[in-house]
Amino acid sequence: MRGRMSDGPSYATPVAPGEVMIGGTVSRVDASQHPDFKPGDLVLGQSGWQSHAISDGKDLTKLDAAMTQPSLALGVLGMPGFTAYMGLLDIGQPKAHDTVVVAAASGAVGSVVGQIAKLKGCRVVGVAGGDEKCRYVVEELGFDACIDHRATDFPQQLTAACADGINIYFENVGGAVFDAVLPLLNVGARIPVCGLIAHYNDTALRDGPDRMSLLIRNILTKRLKMQGFIIFDYYGPRYEAFFVQMSEWLATGQIKFREDVVNGLENAPQAFIGLLKGKNFCKLIVRLADD
Amino acid sequence: MRGRMSDGPSYATPVAPGEVMIGGTVSRVDASQHPDFKPGDLVLGQSGWQSHAISDGKDLTKLDAAMTQPSLALGVLGMPGFTAYMGLLDIGQPKAHDTVVVAAASGAVGSVVGQIAKLKGCRVVGVAGGDEKCRYVVEELGFDACIDHRATDFPQQLTAACADGINIYFENVGGAVFDAVLPLLNVGARIPVCGLIAHYNDTALRDGPDRMSLLIRNILTKRLKMQGFIIFDYYGPRYEAFFVQMSEWLATGQIKFREDVVNGLENAPQAFIGLLKGKNFCKLIVRLADD
Repeated sequence: MRGRMSDGPSYATPVAPGEVMIGGTVSRVDASQHPDFKPGDLVLGQSGWQSHAISDGKDLTKLDAAMTQPSLALGVLGMPGFTAYMGLLDIGQPKAHDTVVVAAASGAVGSVVGQIAKLKGCRVVGVAGGDEKCRYVVEELGFDACIDHRATDFPQQLTAACADGINIYFENVGGAVFDAVLPLLNVGARIPVCGLIAHYNDTALRDGPDRMSLLIRNILTKRLKMQGFIIFDYYGPRYEAFFVQMSEWLATGQIKFREDVVNGLENAPQAFIGLLKGKNFCKLIVRLADD
Repeated sequence: MRGRMSDGPSYATPVAPGEVMIGGTVSRVDASQHPDFKPGDLVLGQSGWQSHAISDGKDLTKLDAAMTQPSLALGVLGMPGFTAYMGLLDIGQPKAHDTVVVAAASGAVGSVVGQIAKLKGCRVVGVAGGDEKCRYVVEELGFDACIDHRATDFPQQLTAACADGINIYFENVGGAVFDAVLPLLNVGARIPVCGLIAHYNDTALRDGPDRMSLLIRNILTKRLKMQGFIIFDYYGPRYEAFFVQMSEWLATGQIKFREDVVNGLENAPQAFIGLLKGKNFCKLIVRLADD
């Protein structure tokens, strides 16, 4: 969404001023002339930041009406959960005893990345902003450690928590977190690049020296694999496999997922600005109606 | 070898002052007490920069005594050829009609990368230093184009030669060549990182702005895969397959390979310094004896 609010190059087409802001939605059908949808049906779509939307049905996916928490289709069972699953498993290729570092560890994607890595037998170190998030990541989600990136000695703390180096770094942040990770990467480390929230508001490059060659030199000498991805490239049969697996992990309590719910469309802009500053907790949901 | 001459972090252990400089060699056995080797045998080894060496046989590979040009075991049939083959095919994964850009295109690795890419149906654009090398790359090796990185309008020439963008960039150089390539990379492009010769003599980072985040942002938004590799990780069964395939390509003339021969060990240091400045032509061989 942040990418759609500026006209710089991105994987997402910008939204023009005056257009409805794009965003994933779970909605209930009010009225329908489409044979496949009837009033009361739950649907997943991309209806954006508005109270009501009209659709020809092509961009809607019907959800199980018996779903107790339909908003999960926007979180752990939807785009963020699938992003975590594919980025970690397909690009990261975790092996037992790997050390996995997860940026934005309490977020919708990071929280799932770390829990899947634990299920694969890895040692998992989260990075999050503030004590409360770090406690949640360790105590509720079961990460082995979580480091507060706001601490003045953050690089030293991360180094201490990664005594055997880092085999996978799940990148969602950039900036100072990546700077601290880079010297700790082991030979053969994998870096799925999923987001760069520390840079989304940048309007210019930061002051030098120019470390681009430093990064490429690390990629060479440590035989790193650094790969960007966008989850839209992965939909299809792999989504089905993900959905079945993740539903099972949720049912057995092996994966936990928390939502941060904001009520009312009028509060969406402020909530979104807060998200870019790290104020939300796990998946941010804007609720427009009670059912 | 350049990496072994400084004590900065690299994949190669440094050579201490006074030790024999490490390097691949083809030698003829002078005298032997080993049952598997007899005088006159041709062997491939790592005997380094010296006229004679003693070995217990463990680090030697016997070559076919009938080989008409044994030094090819140091070039297209050896480490550089295998590097080209694995880097392009395993990491680059070329598809027909891909645009492949090859840095150091007249070199021992680059010349083979481009010729294999042509055999896979790609459009291949080389980058080399000077008119003579560029002519060789197009006229003798069959690349579709070759751009002189010393030209003042090099970025514009490269852009014109890559009208459909770049799907694979085989990195051997870094510096200004990478700078010109980066904006041309297509979504989903692959970048095997094999060397960074423009940076081997760097003692400090260059002046800012700091473009590290620019590179990571490109990796994210264009879903790039950038992966370093060292050929020593690939030896084993894949080398056998390579050797059979490459021998056939050489025999049928589908792959051509040129050597730049310097006579006498006393000329090796100057030849090596020249190589780092781009003075050699394809594979640099130092010949110590006539047979």
